Amino acid sequence: MTTEDAVTEAAADAVTRQAVDSLRATADPRLRDLLTALVRHLHAFAVETRLTQAEWEQAIDFLTATGQACTDTRQEFILLSDVLGLSMLVETLHGHSAPGTTESTVLGPFHLTKSPVRELGDSIDLVGDGEPCVVSGRVRSADGTLLPGAVLDVWQADTHGFYDVQRPDVQPPGNGRGVFTADAEGGFRFRTCVPSSYPIPTDGPVGTLLRAAGRHPYRPAHIHFIATADGHAPVTTHIFVAGDAHLDSDAVFAVKDSLVQDFTPTDDPSLAREFGVANPFRHACFDLVLERVPERE
Amino acid sequence: MTTEDAVTEAAADAVTRQAVDSLRATADPRLRDLLTALVRHLHAFAVETRLTQAEWEQAIDFLTATGQACTDTRQEFILLSDVLGLSMLVETLHGHSAPGTTESTVLGPFHLTKSPVRELGDSIDLVGDGEPCVVSGRVRSADGTLLPGAVLDVWQADTHGFYDVQRPDVQPPGNGRGVFTADAEGGFRFRTCVPSSYPIPTDGPVGTLLRAAGRHPYRPAHIHFIATADGHAPVTTHIFVAGDAHLDSDAVFAVKDSLVQDFTPTDDPSLAREFGVANPFRHACFDLVLERVPERE
Repeated sequence: MTTEDAVTEAAADAVTRQAVDSLRATADPRLRDLLTALVRHLHAFAVETRLTQAEWEQAIDFLTATGQACTDTRQEFILLSDVLGLSMLVETLHGHSAPGTTESTVLGPFHLTKSPVRELGDSIDLVGDGEPCVVSGRVRSADGTLLPGAVLDVWQADTHGFYDVQRPDVQPPGNGRGVFTADAEGGFRFRTCVPSSYPIPTDGPVGTLLRAAGRHPYRPAHIHFIATADGHAPVTTHIFVAGDAHLDSDAVFAVKDSLVQDFTPTDDPSLAREFGVANPFRHACFDLVLERVPERE
Repeated sequence: MTTEDAVTEAAADAVTRQAVDSLRATADPRLRDLLTALVRHLHAFAVETRLTQAEWEQAIDFLTATGQACTDTRQEFILLSDVLGLSMLVETLHGHSAPGTTESTVLGPFHLTKSPVRELGDSIDLVGDGEPCVVSGRVRSADGTLLPGAVLDVWQADTHGFYDVQRPDVQPPGNGRGVFTADAEGGFRFRTCVPSSYPIPTDGPVGTLLRAAGRHPYRPAHIHFIATADGHAPVTTHIFVAGDAHLDSDAVFAVKDSLVQDFTPTDDPSLAREFGVANPFRHACFDLVLERVPERE
């Protein structure tokens, strides 16, 4: 480091100290800690990169455009957080992943709090233009105990890569969605179509960022699950379709190896009869394993 | 660190690595370095604070509101950068502050690229309801060479703490502004009113942040200068009024000790005659010292 650099760093340190000191009177101690850490890391970023005035102006413009791209039906700042890996990081810091249980991943923006309640074996594919598929398995505790009455909230994109809310012109409400209750053995099964990989929206500032970074916008094909059962921690996760070309480069970094499942090509009369589908079909079969937690008083 | 914490940190590290790796193909090497450093620092912030999903949602909402508060005449993201000390930090990393020269500070949002050209001795106070004041001094090089023809672009808030563009109903355009050319001895002098401290806008998200942090929104009273002279690096700076109550707690951290000047109460017939003012008046007298730089070919 040259003397001039050292003088600059000392002056920069003084600015950081003042900014940190200004937060001392923050009434909420957690907010004080968060703001203090934010200022320290933000300043460290600028010092380390020797951020220039012109780059700072570009950043201001980018953040402003990101805020202004947000509407009632679009959240560009969540998308920014997603493509920078922050959403998945926060999920990782707090998601349940006790040994032997199903790993969690991000919720994503397409969950609906009220999904159609369906019977085991029903189809969630109300359109029928995709590759037929059966999803089945059991919900159990990590010690092997089966969990009758466990509830699965399921949602997915269609064979064209769109959720029902994105294409209300061609998909009826509730297409690709269903809430199922496991049977007396903890079993679940439903019919659907094999989901497709799809691009996140690229017509806003986040799309510009992805193009500048030479990144594609695709998420590998997946089905979302939220599994809940009495006495267990709920898990929010996806099941990814094995073989998808984007498993190693999910635009939002949500893939975990343990969540990749075979959607096996099947042509078996007895299985077809059991699930009420025509041959051939694809079959994904896996258990969802929850972590037992102490019952609340 | 517990085993569970170590597992979580390892999983978080893996997310950070993936996000950093995704930036490898960024075509512009400087942008790649900036985005990589941004991801590393953003993730380090979240890991260090164990940022929760609820806090992340609050942050998303805050940034969205900040973007949506921006208009043609208001830049809430710059204000956010200002109150977090980032604007002053970037200024510090790149401002000219060679030994013996006038230190720089932030430009601020109220500079106009075209200010009225005025004669030495003119008043920039077109309203006349403040405390009369004379500002005078010399522009020179660090080695003492006087700089005839140096140009000073000057702007300030009025005695009520507002710039002309903020109060077009009561201030004529160009009030508090002037471009002056130094005389044959590098001398400058103009009449004005003593500026007042003023609050930055607090009716948006940044105001909410300041209140949560128990911070006042005031900037200590100051006059802005941009000084330029042939063969010298221009300097963008303020002169602060000594004795202002907010010198130690500028909302945007722009005060440097060397920039605080006495605005001396004066009652002197010969000085009053020299500057064309009535007694008593306040007098700020200082030199602006520029750094000599090699002439461009």
